[in-house]
Amino acid sequence: MTTHHFQPDHYHRTIGPHVPVLYIEPGDHVLTNTIDARGKDSNGVQVTLPRNPMTGPFYVNGAEPGDTLVLKLERITPTAKLGWSSWGVAANIVDPDFISELTMPVPDKPWVPALWDIDLTASTATLRVPETKLGQLRLHLAPMLGCFGVAPEHEQSISTSTSGPYGGNMDYRGCVAGTVIYFPVFTPGALLFLGDGHAVQGDGEIAGTGIEIAMEVEFQVELIKNKIIHWPRGENKDEIFTLGNARPLDQALQHATTEMVRWLKEDYGLDAVSAGLLLGQAVRYEVANVFDPAYTMVCKIPKTILEGLK
Amino acid sequence: MTTHHFQPDHYHRTIGPHVPVLYIEPGDHVLTNTIDARGKDSNGVQVTLPRNPMTGPFYVNGAEPGDTLVLKLERITPTAKLGWSSWGVAANIVDPDFISELTMPVPDKPWVPALWDIDLTASTATLRVPETKLGQLRLHLAPMLGCFGVAPEHEQSISTSTSGPYGGNMDYRGCVAGTVIYFPVFTPGALLFLGDGHAVQGDGEIAGTGIEIAMEVEFQVELIKNKIIHWPRGENKDEIFTLGNARPLDQALQHATTEMVRWLKEDYGLDAVSAGLLLGQAVRYEVANVFDPAYTMVCKIPKTILEGLK
Amino acid sequence: MTTHHFQPDHYHRTIGPHVPVLYIEPGDHVLTNTIDARGKDSNGVQVTLPRNPMTGPFYVNGAEPGDTLVLKLERITPTAKLGWSSWGVAANIVDPDFISELTMPVPDKPWVPALWDIDLTASTATLRVPETKLGQLRLHLAPMLGCFGVAPEHEQSISTSTSGPYGGNMDYRGCVAGTVIYFPVFTPGALLFLGDGHAVQGDGEIAGTGIEIAMEVEFQVELIKNKIIHWPRGENKDEIFTLGNARPLDQALQHATTEMVRWLKEDYGLDAVSAGLLLGQAVRYEVANVFDPAYTMVCKIPKTILEGLK
Amino acid sequence: MTTHHFQPDHYHRTIGPHVPVLYIEPGDHVLTNTIDARGKDSNGVQVTLPRNPMTGPFYVNGAEPGDTLVLKLERITPTAKLGWSSWGVAANIVDPDFISELTMPVPDKPWVPALWDIDLTASTATLRVPETKLGQLRLHLAPMLGCFGVAPEHEQSISTSTSGPYGGNMDYRGCVAGTVIYFPVFTPGALLFLGDGHAVQGDGEIAGTGIEIAMEVEFQVELIKNKIIHWPRGENKDEIFTLGNARPLDQALQHATTEMVRWLKEDYGLDAVSAGLLLGQAVRYEVANVFDPAYTMVCKIPKTILEGLK
Repeated sequence: MTTHHFQPDHYHRTIGPHVPVLYIEPGDHVLTNTIDARGKDSNGVQVTLPRNPMTGPFYVNGAEPGDTLVLKLERITPTAKLGWSSWGVAANIVDPDFISELTMPVPDKPWVPALWDIDLTASTATLRVPETKLGQLRLHLAPMLGCFGVAPEHEQSISTSTSGPYGGNMDYRGCVAGTVIYFPVFTPGALLFLGDGHAVQGDGEIAGTGIEIAMEVEFQVELIKNKIIHWPRGENKDEIFTLGNARPLDQALQHATTEMVRWLKEDYGLDAVSAGLLLGQAVRYEVANVFDPAYTMVCKIPKTILEGLK
Repeated sequence: MTTHHFQPDHYHRTIGPHVPVLYIEPGDHVLTNTIDARGKDSNGVQVTLPRNPMTGPFYVNGAEPGDTLVLKLERITPTAKLGWSSWGVAANIVDPDFISELTMPVPDKPWVPALWDIDLTASTATLRVPETKLGQLRLHLAPMLGCFGVAPEHEQSISTSTSGPYGGNMDYRGCVAGTVIYFPVFTPGALLFLGDGHAVQGDGEIAGTGIEIAMEVEFQVELIKNKIIHWPRGENKDEIFTLGNARPLDQALQHATTEMVRWLKEDYGLDAVSAGLLLGQAVRYEVANVFDPAYTMVCKIPKTILEGLK
Repeated sequence: MTTHHFQPDHYHRTIGPHVPVLYIEPGDHVLTNTIDARGKDSNGVQVTLPRNPMTGPFYVNGAEPGDTLVLKLERITPTAKLGWSSWGVAANIVDPDFISELTMPVPDKPWVPALWDIDLTASTATLRVPETKLGQLRLHLAPMLGCFGVAPEHEQSISTSTSGPYGGNMDYRGCVAGTVIYFPVFTPGALLFLGDGHAVQGDGEIAGTGIEIAMEVEFQVELIKNKIIHWPRGENKDEIFTLGNARPLDQALQHATTEMVRWLKEDYGLDAVSAGLLLGQAVRYEVANVFDPAYTMVCKIPKTILEGLK
Repeated sequence: MTTHHFQPDHYHRTIGPHVPVLYIEPGDHVLTNTIDARGKDSNGVQVTLPRNPMTGPFYVNGAEPGDTLVLKLERITPTAKLGWSSWGVAANIVDPDFISELTMPVPDKPWVPALWDIDLTASTATLRVPETKLGQLRLHLAPMLGCFGVAPEHEQSISTSTSGPYGGNMDYRGCVAGTVIYFPVFTPGALLFLGDGHAVQGDGEIAGTGIEIAMEVEFQVELIKNKIIHWPRGENKDEIFTLGNARPLDQALQHATTEMVRWLKEDYGLDAVSAGLLLGQAVRYEVANVFDPAYTMVCKIPKTILEGLK
């Protein structure tokens, strides 16, 4: 079992069948870096253009269409001292008639982000600027990846602003270290991309950003041969979950719920009745993002409830 | 401070300006009963027609349009030995092309609900019938009210199947004992209705039912004079929250988020920038119901984050 | 066959089981008046409160739940010399980020409507104020009823701002003289309400108003006993159509299309395959309203295509 | 002015920055062929894989990002004797609870399309199989292109099943000969693709297909330098129109309406008030497609109303 140290020297702003930067084996670990959503590295140096530039793609030897890629997020550590975020909430998440009340006080100045001090020892992000009534608002760090996935179906190259069955810009704050994500493989080698780290993020990414920051990321890949899934799946120590990406939220929820029913059927042997009884009284949802072109809804089941079924 | 014991002898299937069953003062407690969604009491006796029959309305002396009614849910206790639920998930929460895979195995038999044994001592609901691979699936009790609210705006009488700014069939599993709900008052006396108790319910009420059951309910009302809110608000020991009711989920989320921004502005003095900074990185959402004619989304902020702001 | 002349002296702002103003027989004609959406009559006199006050309800003798009411709109004539409209388009029909560009130039003055001269001889509406680059914009009169319907299901009383299976504020510009509308009957006597006349209206009522005006309305009612329909249906000399009311537009379209499939099955004997073949290549849709709490979508089939099928 | 005769020998199933098949000048005409949605040519020979294979891309010399490409559809002629369509309507366009009633009678046989005889002289499509109560249903030919557009923003390659600001699979039955379409240019040369011809199509493409057929297409391109548009625009002899692509329909309508407001402002000098007055009472919408991953809504204004404004 190998651990690769990979330092990117270029980035992609579409997820697609691009030239691999590294070939890895199932079981391999990779330690690498991601830059922030605006293309800045740990030192605040602009190393590429903005809009979720991705590290990768990593070619997983042996991965073929019809397989499932297993991505174990082992460590996600902010590498900059300052993270940034937008100031206000997005226009699309309040009532249309209320949008005018969100108008920022200094619309004519050039846009500058809010800045947050990152303290890895205390595990906190603390608001530095702007000065508001919030003072030095302090939030607990929960570093996550906002955008990651594999090359999409039908040989598409799709902007890192959006998401689909292949993953992408799902902005789910549950994608923290310790989480395992499963992706459908559409392309030989799967072609794994990752980036868009957030030190902290609320549900829905309703400000349009988390606390954006460069990250050091350690992950392991595995491969499940001849296993077809339709949407990204995941698990952590407490839950299994599925991710549906679409607009409106209703459709994202339909995708995620459908994928969960499939999962319960395939791996837990539940038929329509038993899956319905279980989900009806025990399902949990999370609004991952309600900002990006495709919204993301998460459908979850506690593992305790599934004990003894597998 | 009075505690009223009120035993209903008739029920309403619309929420509207109906004749009050009891006049109470702000500060009063009421101990009453609700029947289940199909109109059955604790003994399984059909006492009225199905479809969320309500206990009430209670007239709160002094409540006027432009006030806010405060409803403290003090106790919600199942009073039957068996609760019931539907078998399967609703057609609207999976992909349209997947609905045919949810078809139940015995579509030609008359519909019978799934039954759950309620054990108040152990605080569990245990699946009795049907027999499935789930066996005696056991879930933790979390008794809640699915449908409750005040007489709607514009002298409407609205079916207890749906919801609006006045509350109604929101089916939020967070409406448990210990929760305080705030309703806008649209009618003299506010006219409070309650019913549709669930012993357990998953997010979204995606089966179309929780574990439906008659309840004993104890509550207290208070009144905030000359305080206008636009959507139901609530709080428990950990969080403040707002409830938005509409379709699609996106619009329910817009209503709930807008109401939260108003709350942060009015009671915590936050402007657009500070509310945006806070919500963007700390907001939480819950999908209350995604089954009823109006869906319900909950927007939440942890109280710890608000400390020192008020 | 009787023609009733009915001059209203009070109005309703909910559609519900209110006291009838007139009892009529199937086959009877009624000649009556409606006032405008703000409660003003032909002379501009404020005769009641604003928000779509309705004339009625008319009790149709013999109408029972499970029947279908047939409403023949025979004449709809503006009775005022001036109609009014709002100035701008609604916030919800443009991109959220674009709303700020719709801001009106004089937001601090009290709101005054745009005014249009109505010329019945020339059959035109001509913009009088405000003065804009449009000059005296002249549009062809197409007088219609925006809000009309029967008492809703489940003994509800619902605001005239919205709509449902019972009709209501559908704001479909196709509801002109010569059109026949079919409503499901939910209440003895059906209880027909009508009002909210528009001299002209664009698709979607995206300004939130048509050219609002008092009307003289002549109609005939008929009754189809024991005929259940689920949504309003209609026909004119060229088309049959169905109306679906809901949000989002997708769901309104689902309701209207479903009702059309039912109609093709019941009255034209088409099965799923033949209805699919026909609708797929020949259906037409119209966006009736995309402003009210429930949007309205119209599903249409040309009568020429249906010839020989009935 | 040159007329190019271009016979394709390969096709693309993504719209993206692919190698041009022909370089043309603004003002040039092109006469070419498109194959049907399943990859069959005029003779029914399978010449490539299914799913909307495109002819092109055509590189327009001088086109640069920030320009607008003008595409004049001069002739669209079916070149096969038979067109095909699906049998039934799509699951997503009826109520979820109604989908089971659309089940086809022979679900276990291999899928075969419905077939339609194309008669160019009579200008009709006549149903040949299956045999249904519709008999030999005859529809008027209205040949159109379902999928066409230019290379998307951000160097994406996007499946021909969907659409966006760059055009794509909009399936608007108004894209007939005589129509002019305007596309934003995102890539040097614009890179124009076209295909997916329909001999006839209903609104919404609710069957998931039109009457699909190979076409001979003649078009001319022009270029408007330094003219930025945000969504496809178009015009015919009677109307100007804009196309918005998204889900749900509400958002597609927002995009199309926003683009129309921009157009009225830029080219007709209308401010927010005058655009609102005009659109509110005179706008027309069409549901282009309500089947593809992105729905398409069309916003239209009659040219007669715009006379004298430009």
